[in-house]
Amino acid sequence: MKWEVRIAYKRGVQDPEGETTLQALKMLGFEKVERVSTAKLFIIEGECSREEVERMCRRLLANPVSQDYEIRRLAD
Amino acid sequence: MKWEVRIAYKRGVQDPEGETTLQALKMLGFEKVERVSTAKLFIIEGECSREEVERMCRRLLANPVSQDYEIRRLAD
Repeated sequence: MKWEVRIAYKRGVQDPEGETTLQALKMLGFEKVERVSTAKLFIIEGECSREEVERMCRRLLANPVSQDYEIRRLAD
Repeated sequence: MKWEVRIAYKRGVQDPEGETTLQALKMLGFEKVERVSTAKLFIIEGECSREEVERMCRRLLANPVSQDYEIRRLAD
């Protein structure tokens, strides 16, 4: 099985990498960019259930204070 | 407009964060995980064309030696 886990900052939490990227893009002349936000993907392969992947998120992959996670199953 | 850029390692390139995550998951008891790979998402908002977003990838967001990028337009 193949799962995709998307880890993103919760609404209202600062995204320092997004901020820095926005400034860098503007410095390179991409003036029309207004906002950049970032997220992280983990693609997890193995005979795991959705419940197990949720436990992985809570125990390791996501910071429950500042991050949300979203899990979706991919075609094998 | 809203664009999602997905940056992933090219096939055959090592993914150190994926490797470390795999080891950590196994240490936590998730024995059935066989492989973990990672990717990065940038969500870019502004009046930019797809061609401009491609230039952003080539100039800043992706490392052409080791990474591939994929661009898709999101609903506003």
